[in-house]
Amino acid sequence: MLGLMQNWPLTVDKILDHAKAWHGDREIVSRSVEGPIVRSTYAQSHERAKRLSNALKSLGVQHGDRVATLAWNTARHLEVWYGIMGIGAVCHTLNPRLFAEQLCYIVNHAEDRIIFTDLTFLPILAENAAKMTSVKHFVVLTDREGMKGVSLPNALCYEDLIEQHSPDVTWGGFDETSPAALCYTSGTTGNPKGVLYSHRSNFIHTLATMSVDVLGISGMDTVLPVVPMFHANAWGLALSCPAAGAKMVMPGQKLDGASIHELLETERVTFSAAVPTVWQMLLAHLRDTRGSLTTLKRVVIGGSAVPEAIVRGFRDEFGVDVTHAWGMTETSPLGTIAQPSGAMLDLSPEQLLQAKLKQGRTPFTMEMKITDDAGNVLPHDGTTFGRLKVKGPYVVGQYFKGEGGEILDETGFFDTGDVATIDATGFMQITDRAKDVIKSGGEWISSIEIENIAMGHPKAANAAVIGAPHPKWDERPVLLVKLRDGVEGTKEEFLAFLEGKIAKWWTPDDVVFVDDIPLGATGKIDKKLIRDRMKDYVLPTARTPVGA
Amino acid sequence: MLGLMQNWPLTVDKILDHAKAWHGDREIVSRSVEGPIVRSTYAQSHERAKRLSNALKSLGVQHGDRVATLAWNTARHLEVWYGIMGIGAVCHTLNPRLFAEQLCYIVNHAEDRIIFTDLTFLPILAENAAKMTSVKHFVVLTDREGMKGVSLPNALCYEDLIEQHSPDVTWGGFDETSPAALCYTSGTTGNPKGVLYSHRSNFIHTLATMSVDVLGISGMDTVLPVVPMFHANAWGLALSCPAAGAKMVMPGQKLDGASIHELLETERVTFSAAVPTVWQMLLAHLRDTRGSLTTLKRVVIGGSAVPEAIVRGFRDEFGVDVTHAWGMTETSPLGTIAQPSGAMLDLSPEQLLQAKLKQGRTPFTMEMKITDDAGNVLPHDGTTFGRLKVKGPYVVGQYFKGEGGEILDETGFFDTGDVATIDATGFMQITDRAKDVIKSGGEWISSIEIENIAMGHPKAANAAVIGAPHPKWDERPVLLVKLRDGVEGTKEEFLAFLEGKIAKWWTPDDVVFVDDIPLGATGKIDKKLIRDRMKDYVLPTARTPVGA
Repeated sequence: MLGLMQNWPLTVDKILDHAKAWHGDREIVSRSVEGPIVRSTYAQSHERAKRLSNALKSLGVQHGDRVATLAWNTARHLEVWYGIMGIGAVCHTLNPRLFAEQLCYIVNHAEDRIIFTDLTFLPILAENAAKMTSVKHFVVLTDREGMKGVSLPNALCYEDLIEQHSPDVTWGGFDETSPAALCYTSGTTGNPKGVLYSHRSNFIHTLATMSVDVLGISGMDTVLPVVPMFHANAWGLALSCPAAGAKMVMPGQKLDGASIHELLETERVTFSAAVPTVWQMLLAHLRDTRGSLTTLKRVVIGGSAVPEAIVRGFRDEFGVDVTHAWGMTETSPLGTIAQPSGAMLDLSPEQLLQAKLKQGRTPFTMEMKITDDAGNVLPHDGTTFGRLKVKGPYVVGQYFKGEGGEILDETGFFDTGDVATIDATGFMQITDRAKDVIKSGGEWISSIEIENIAMGHPKAANAAVIGAPHPKWDERPVLLVKLRDGVEGTKEEFLAFLEGKIAKWWTPDDVVFVDDIPLGATGKIDKKLIRDRMKDYVLPTARTPVGA
Repeated sequence: MLGLMQNWPLTVDKILDHAKAWHGDREIVSRSVEGPIVRSTYAQSHERAKRLSNALKSLGVQHGDRVATLAWNTARHLEVWYGIMGIGAVCHTLNPRLFAEQLCYIVNHAEDRIIFTDLTFLPILAENAAKMTSVKHFVVLTDREGMKGVSLPNALCYEDLIEQHSPDVTWGGFDETSPAALCYTSGTTGNPKGVLYSHRSNFIHTLATMSVDVLGISGMDTVLPVVPMFHANAWGLALSCPAAGAKMVMPGQKLDGASIHELLETERVTFSAAVPTVWQMLLAHLRDTRGSLTTLKRVVIGGSAVPEAIVRGFRDEFGVDVTHAWGMTETSPLGTIAQPSGAMLDLSPEQLLQAKLKQGRTPFTMEMKITDDAGNVLPHDGTTFGRLKVKGPYVVGQYFKGEGGEILDETGFFDTGDVATIDATGFMQITDRAKDVIKSGGEWISSIEIENIAMGHPKAANAAVIGAPHPKWDERPVLLVKLRDGVEGTKEEFLAFLEGKIAKWWTPDDVVFVDDIPLGATGKIDKKLIRDRMKDYVLPTARTPVGA
């Protein structure tokens, strides 16, 4: 026996249909790549997305074909997403911050047939087009005027395409498990791997994030997604904003403090989302210019751990609530968010702030656990840390083309590669990447915890901690410090600074001063490169005494 | 090609699993049918629900079998729901307000194997048990002490059952389209018809209602569902509260103003939901006792149109926001809710209040349209009214056992049987039931609009408007008035009262004073019965002149 409710497949074309039908006049305001601010509405962008679907069909795109975008957050980029997904093709977001070599690898691995690109990225495409063997067309997200300087062979003009095709096209009508979008992981180990989202997974993620305790986007909100659509799907905002009927403000390529501040104020933004760096730039700008935030109420921060100073700065100086979130490409991306739960009703503002520095709790529909290496579930005591594993309708089941083989454990959980604690209120805190955690005498030491404290030293510009081989303890921590320009420092003063802030046995066996702490494509410390550079390094505590 | 995200069926057992794992200590507080306030937690009720699942299995219940409840809102009732649904059996909620004959019809039609009942309903069951031929067991929701006075043959004790069985049972593992719950419509025409919800439909309804712009239940909330679990699923609160980790306060059978007020205050309730009658009783109680509402922030009202006086009373006297909602058994039930949208940002508080008296806008995942009799879509102008039709993942596709045949139109929409307008902001307002709308000269007249105005006459205790046959106009409205005790009224003064408040051609052709305006099981005016009583009535405007 089956239930007798309607068969209504969860396909994402219904999101923009809903926005058009019920919030047709709500705006999408973009800082265009050409320069001026341009305004569209859900009704207009819906029509343009439909025209684009017909254009794609005329270019031979079929159900399941991959069509890529290399673009900033603009209304055009949004239209392209829905135009692709509406007809069952797969929208593949390319990260322009990747090295050319990786970009080519990804395009070819995905077998992208078309790349939609902003003017910004024409040079890199011109240089590498020949290596992108599957690509038949490049479409430049501009008008005829903008095409004048374009020298890329066979490049098509987006506005021409839109104009040439009718909006009369059927969206949806396929199974909800059809693929909708593709995004490659940054690939700190091995080649980048593709996560192939389904319509169903994107749809359920959208519903889950719309909950008041998750992102809680309302139709009354004006949302500025600073987080790029090529970075973990802009945390789903390109789907949840139209679903909620929120006004969208798209920042284009200008993510500096002054440009973001201008949009926040002129467009009366109430909600925004970005990585910590962007918020740091905005805070600095506001302080420099004695600026204020008159409409902004909430910002969500993710991508890397949020520094306490940002949370306090926004709260105390600008009356803005900062919410910390965690996720990854493999989780669509929202995995946890630091929204207080019923268990935290009696916390003081200061206790709440400390809690909100953690990555937070898992939304309904996401299962989560921490385990030891043998897979045993570890307690939610806030101190025991273990491998962070997740399961749910928008968690990756396998990578595109089966890369990496079986990636779920025997209970169906995906190992995030992060190491974390979970406390009694259910709040999760990332303590390290599994491959960066230092295993000393059978116990785990969090490299991130030590480096975060070390970065607080006034002389430190940046810091990193890695495990170095040790004959007795297996591994011992070593602290790498990049000093601020023009200052000098000693091993002793850094070790003294850590004293009392970490367990004694966590104290690094050495401090090494370096000229550079390398960062990866997503702005995180590239520990793989650091380990490569340090491969011949020997700990002083591990050195064979001279003459022994 | 398919997306490569995890296969994670949307089954409702995962809701209570989530509550146990992440909000295990949050309370479910019940006013027990035996009298005292009793306290449970999600972790405890999860264990008890699992024990119940084993008890059901021991009684022979299998996947798809119907198990009924005839019970008030309590933690035990909640446990029974999850205990039934977790193993793939169907939870059939019975409405104790139905006449015994209808109750027997429904039990037999559903082929219920077991009925879980509160002590309250033992008399009606004792009297009718013999007619409920499919029922093998009655389980009384009480402990051994409470069983002492129970004379129902073969009645089992709930607490005994729970105690006798282990909590070790597997929930879920079946397809998400499996049936989860069954609820019969009140059946104003013909026999009651069953709506068979699936796990999927209940799950998606839960996610949709958790959105900030729908019910927006947070883990920080304490929710008092006055609306019964047997009435349109308590608007999904038995699912959305555990999903959100909200504390639940279950009122049992005492829904009077004093009892509800006591719970609201002692349990620090922040959110509640009920039909207008309950709120009217609460308002009266608060005014009589000079009581206050110190924690309540929001109430949702549905079931019938919300009177303006209630909205103003709660807002102005008690600082509580009233939100109007509309739905039906066939829509799981939430169809629309009067949450302001982006199009209403500039409304004044008074304009907003007027807007909030409408039934509101449709949540994302629900499609809605109004059409004329030929199925043509009518404009969203706030004045044109037409048949209200809906479509979505938690809208009925067909009734249980195919009763009523094909119920969707050729575009897959379900005709709600309501007549409504939709305005430019997307707010829907019910103007009538389709079968009650008066068709005069090819145009429609809203019976509800006229009777609502007539009820405002100081001499009216109640009023109803029906269409009476007319040789020229097909139908013309006739107003039935029940006068307040001891007053007298005339046709002329009622017609004069309507003048200027409705279009001239809407003016009733006659006013008939009656002793009784009959109400149906759900408290609405029973127009079918009125039409039966008036079947020999002839309009003065339709009478053949004497001697003609």
